[in-house]
Amino acid sequence: MKATIERATLLKGLSHVQSVVERRNTIPILSNVLIEAVGDGAIRLMATDLDLQIDETVAAAVDQGGATTVSAHTLFDIARKLPEGSQVELQAAEGRMTIRAGRYNSSLPTLPRDDFPVIAEGELPTTFELPAETLKQIIDKTRFAISTEETRYYLNGIFLHVADDTLKAAATDGHRLARVTVARPDGAEAMPDVIVPRKCVGELRKLLDEVDGSVGVSLSGSKIRFDLGRAILTSKLIDGTFPDYSRVIPTANDKLLKLDPRSFQEGVDRVATIASEKTRAVKMALDRDKITLSVTSPENGAAVEEVPGDYTSLPFEIGFNSRYLLDILGQIDGDSVEVHLADAAAPTLIRENDKSPALYVLMPMRV
Amino acid sequence: MKATIERATLLKGLSHVQSVVERRNTIPILSNVLIEAVGDGAIRLMATDLDLQIDETVAAAVDQGGATTVSAHTLFDIARKLPEGSQVELQAAEGRMTIRAGRYNSSLPTLPRDDFPVIAEGELPTTFELPAETLKQIIDKTRFAISTEETRYYLNGIFLHVADDTLKAAATDGHRLARVTVARPDGAEAMPDVIVPRKCVGELRKLLDEVDGSVGVSLSGSKIRFDLGRAILTSKLIDGTFPDYSRVIPTANDKLLKLDPRSFQEGVDRVATIASEKTRAVKMALDRDKITLSVTSPENGAAVEEVPGDYTSLPFEIGFNSRYLLDILGQIDGDSVEVHLADAAAPTLIRENDKSPALYVLMPMRV
Repeated sequence: MKATIERATLLKGLSHVQSVVERRNTIPILSNVLIEAVGDGAIRLMATDLDLQIDETVAAAVDQGGATTVSAHTLFDIARKLPEGSQVELQAAEGRMTIRAGRYNSSLPTLPRDDFPVIAEGELPTTFELPAETLKQIIDKTRFAISTEETRYYLNGIFLHVADDTLKAAATDGHRLARVTVARPDGAEAMPDVIVPRKCVGELRKLLDEVDGSVGVSLSGSKIRFDLGRAILTSKLIDGTFPDYSRVIPTANDKLLKLDPRSFQEGVDRVATIASEKTRAVKMALDRDKITLSVTSPENGAAVEEVPGDYTSLPFEIGFNSRYLLDILGQIDGDSVEVHLADAAAPTLIRENDKSPALYVLMPMRV
Repeated sequence: MKATIERATLLKGLSHVQSVVERRNTIPILSNVLIEAVGDGAIRLMATDLDLQIDETVAAAVDQGGATTVSAHTLFDIARKLPEGSQVELQAAEGRMTIRAGRYNSSLPTLPRDDFPVIAEGELPTTFELPAETLKQIIDKTRFAISTEETRYYLNGIFLHVADDTLKAAATDGHRLARVTVARPDGAEAMPDVIVPRKCVGELRKLLDEVDGSVGVSLSGSKIRFDLGRAILTSKLIDGTFPDYSRVIPTANDKLLKLDPRSFQEGVDRVATIASEKTRAVKMALDRDKITLSVTSPENGAAVEEVPGDYTSLPFEIGFNSRYLLDILGQIDGDSVEVHLADAAAPTLIRENDKSPALYVLMPMRV
């Protein structure tokens, strides 16, 4: 293989690829990027961690076909340090790949292309398109609620499923739930329920920043593939059963509180400053159009802030984990947020309004 | 004590103060900032780690005199989260300090002012002024060479001493040495040799970004005080003997290499990409006007780059720790750097030219 690539083009491609590659690998070839000449105007960069695979095509002048694999992080670091505007020549021969640019010249050990593990996609019978903006919204408004508890592996991703004429995305860690509902895209009718792993979600989100228009989604019960133009992301799905989360979404919470999400968020953040690292609990006392946020910590003192709000039901007090509350409020873009409450022990529903695609459920804390 | 302060003023003062306060303290009051009303137009903020003390005066409307101490990090976090333009009221009474701003109100536990440890400066017989720019230069061009080895505590700072009509600042970790020479300021004639600890150097450097004009320096053999206008930094000095570093500055290196520091720096950085984490060694092969940088690593491959340079002595090869070389080149501002070499085992002298206030000595590595 021999090809010449613009440094900026190579760097961009490698930046996507190297973030899929884990820093430490027991299988050496997983540290490598597969570089393959495709036709005479492009090379393909491919990396995998065995669960997630990225396959990106970048423009290059190809002098000689073929393929090889070299350390993804090393090649990325070299590309990063080469001068802007360089033409980078990659040439593979006899177990080495040479990299030439201006007066710089290096030779990296390679591993054979045939040893590079490629995820077998198998049949992906469900195929649909989603606007990149919709996919961004789905991810942004749910990913913060993905569980990091490895023992509950079936919560370590975003659950996607079709219900009637909607596509729903949900994530939960048992303390809070985030769900986004969008119109069901054509082709998704018979889609199986799937759980997309956290790492795939993260890499997809980064790639979406560079995509306009639509993203092609293809999936089976065990694999998902996102076609983002030059880059294709393929991931195994989490092999588990997502809990029936719809049962925890309250439907009969009869106490409605409306607030300005910014002053609510800032108030929670301020009073939570003195909350103990362990509980992070903040108390909300609701009275007629008067919401009082407070924290009392035996070591750190006490803090109180009143925030303006519309509330006409019976007065009561409820506690929340301030961090979880801030995560949710950070996702409310409008100038009003609805908090639907039942009592101090019941799940609370938070949403912009009854038309907003996203809703959040937060379990209270005893305070 | 009762005083009202602009949030921005309080925040700026506390940002200086809280960075002196260690995150973990076995003595509780060391986590606190001392707040004291001074006259009716200012309060004083003071923090210490017993070795380094900052004392800053900020404008405030004082309603009631007195002093107290509260958690520096907590008060800083609160001030940071208060809305821009807030007026912050601080009031101490009965073992608590209340903080009020708009609808926010908190109460922090305090510790008595009398328990707050103040560094006794004693006599500081040497007093002089240094332009802030000179002090910045002294710090920037030497601090990277300060040793972090705690067992060699006498190298954990910048050594300041007077020699004839110059003031010299030096730092070394045994592998490299950095020295800056400036004109001896009036008043420094009889100055004792002192070692200013790394933490004091770091805090001083941050404060210097906000200072124009001159800084007052007062010192004895055991304490140093920097007067930066609103802020006064007082530090204990390192009680040890700095080695006689002048013996390691080579004076008879007869091979002169002149290069462009930027292309030299970038070349070293590029070839060092594949250097092993352990040695970081880069080889320089010097030939008539031809400098070849190279790295060979059993695991990672090989890299070579030629950099332009003026060299007319006998060809030879020498190795350096690339990180140390990059640290030094990062301090060369001009468009030329001189490297004075003797042989592959002898200390090498690096400087901009024979008029530059800074010089660097680097020990070679076997490659």
